[in-house]
Amino acid sequence: MDGTMSAIGDIVHRDKIIIITDADVYGLHQDKFAGYSTIVIPAGEQYKQQATVDSIMQQLIRYEADRKTFIIGVGGGVVTDIAGYAAAVYMRGLSVGFVPTTILAQTDAAVGGKNGIDVGIYKNLVGTIRQPEFILYDYSFLQTLPWEQWVNGFAEVIKHACIKDTHLFDFLEKHQLKDFRSNKSLLAETIERNVVIKSEIVEQDEFEQGERKLLNFGHTLGHAIENEYQLLHGHAISIGMVAAAVISEKIKGLPASQTERISRLLQQYHLPIAMEYNKQQAFEVLKMDKKRSGQGMNFVLLEEIGKATVTNIPMIQLEQIIQAL
Amino acid sequence: MDGTMSAIGDIVHRDKIIIITDADVYGLHQDKFAGYSTIVIPAGEQYKQQATVDSIMQQLIRYEADRKTFIIGVGGGVVTDIAGYAAAVYMRGLSVGFVPTTILAQTDAAVGGKNGIDVGIYKNLVGTIRQPEFILYDYSFLQTLPWEQWVNGFAEVIKHACIKDTHLFDFLEKHQLKDFRSNKSLLAETIERNVVIKSEIVEQDEFEQGERKLLNFGHTLGHAIENEYQLLHGHAISIGMVAAAVISEKIKGLPASQTERISRLLQQYHLPIAMEYNKQQAFEVLKMDKKRSGQGMNFVLLEEIGKATVTNIPMIQLEQIIQAL
Repeated sequence: MDGTMSAIGDIVHRDKIIIITDADVYGLHQDKFAGYSTIVIPAGEQYKQQATVDSIMQQLIRYEADRKTFIIGVGGGVVTDIAGYAAAVYMRGLSVGFVPTTILAQTDAAVGGKNGIDVGIYKNLVGTIRQPEFILYDYSFLQTLPWEQWVNGFAEVIKHACIKDTHLFDFLEKHQLKDFRSNKSLLAETIERNVVIKSEIVEQDEFEQGERKLLNFGHTLGHAIENEYQLLHGHAISIGMVAAAVISEKIKGLPASQTERISRLLQQYHLPIAMEYNKQQAFEVLKMDKKRSGQGMNFVLLEEIGKATVTNIPMIQLEQIIQAL
Repeated sequence: MDGTMSAIGDIVHRDKIIIITDADVYGLHQDKFAGYSTIVIPAGEQYKQQATVDSIMQQLIRYEADRKTFIIGVGGGVVTDIAGYAAAVYMRGLSVGFVPTTILAQTDAAVGGKNGIDVGIYKNLVGTIRQPEFILYDYSFLQTLPWEQWVNGFAEVIKHACIKDTHLFDFLEKHQLKDFRSNKSLLAETIERNVVIKSEIVEQDEFEQGERKLLNFGHTLGHAIENEYQLLHGHAISIGMVAAAVISEKIKGLPASQTERISRLLQQYHLPIAMEYNKQQAFEVLKMDKKRSGQGMNFVLLEEIGKATVTNIPMIQLEQIIQAL
């Protein structure tokens, strides 16, 4: 729902709320947290680790959190992932709600119930799937969102267009990132469209037996380089999407002209489409991807823009493909 | 189901199994683990902590565990709790099965899907509720079970009798612990009866909204002293059950003669019924019990042997009651 964070007190009894946020959000919006028990974690993907969860647990104990406590994650994807995870396992599960403060969290991370943490360089290796009680969209947080985080978030928006929505793809081609920053209704409409795309997929397939796998487009190679090179998530999956499009040409006959269109759109939104990285090392990390199934990897490919499909690629073949990228 | 551990290969494809056990079980039954990828954790409740889970995660990565991997916990309650928890969160959930090797795990810990770890002295503060795919009863493990672990396990058996089954209570009064050690069919019948009692409660109320709370009889005070004084779980809840019976006299009119019978039965099975402990400190730990709900504690009391009930006792009153015990 849309609203301002001050409305939280109307949704949940104020005394029972414990907010989890990060130092960046807290520093920029301290007034919004006045009067709430708040746990502030350090900002950045490198803190999406068990040590941070351990510290959250200690603070929940200090606040005497019990099963009536409501956890609210206020922040970007790292905060909503880790707050959702802590809430899922503390006392075997507290209620949780999110106030996503970035484009990425609003269009993707906070939606769908996946939570979790990284284990070293392995992305989201530990976590659960558990839906929040609410997601509150308070657009005032976007006023302080740095430019690079706008870029970061639009990578997932372009991903949704690639796998599910040619109209959204066309629409994005006709605009620039700055249009969305300056035009509130254009932005709200786009965020809403993305929430609908993701929610519909999650409703059909909450536990990722089929359709939900499509959301991993660009994420297999993306995750394999993201933590190793400390990339923004959007940058990593942008590079991953171009690689997946190139692989789609070979295996699914995606026309090269469509790979071109995808690359052009990513660049239009200031996203990187390639980088130098150690391919052997990336393959080693990729082996631990959750989409691996025995001797093969469930890889998301495109038949055309707007139409994705999952193909099990044998690990041996995938190693060769990555070496040849 | 009953069987021998060697039957696991018939239930689950051998290549996909990773066993989690502890050093005691592994040392005594090493032959049973031959040919299986096995993670051995140190034995003892003091290792039921996040650090052990962290180490399990590292070893799962080393074994390249993926979503097709089947985790099997072979051991007592600590092993089944921690293996169930690791399986619940690794890659957002792997399948898990249990081979409980103690009376306590066979009659209680492995049954019902509660898993988790302690956080410092706070028992089971972190975990999930998630049912195993199977529980395999291999009674050959009991041949090496130390005497104190027989005593430990029968505390939960007596608990089941107290809250749900006067016939079981009468039956236990007529026997001695040594009868169960020497008479396999008497033991198997008793274990089965206990599994039925617990399973029926869990089936009615998996997520502990009502009926399942009754299983916490003796556990509120028990948990508050267990880790602080490094007691066996059975010893701690035995003391907790006597305390709960005394409180039941005051609040629920349980006849003093029934408290007497409970104390006598616990002693007959070599369980302690009292100890010296710091009551103020115990109350501080107890405040973090999962059964606390705001200003009150959902405390399990007896109306009579075989009939338990939950009463919300205000924390202020509970503090006085404990001081007066």
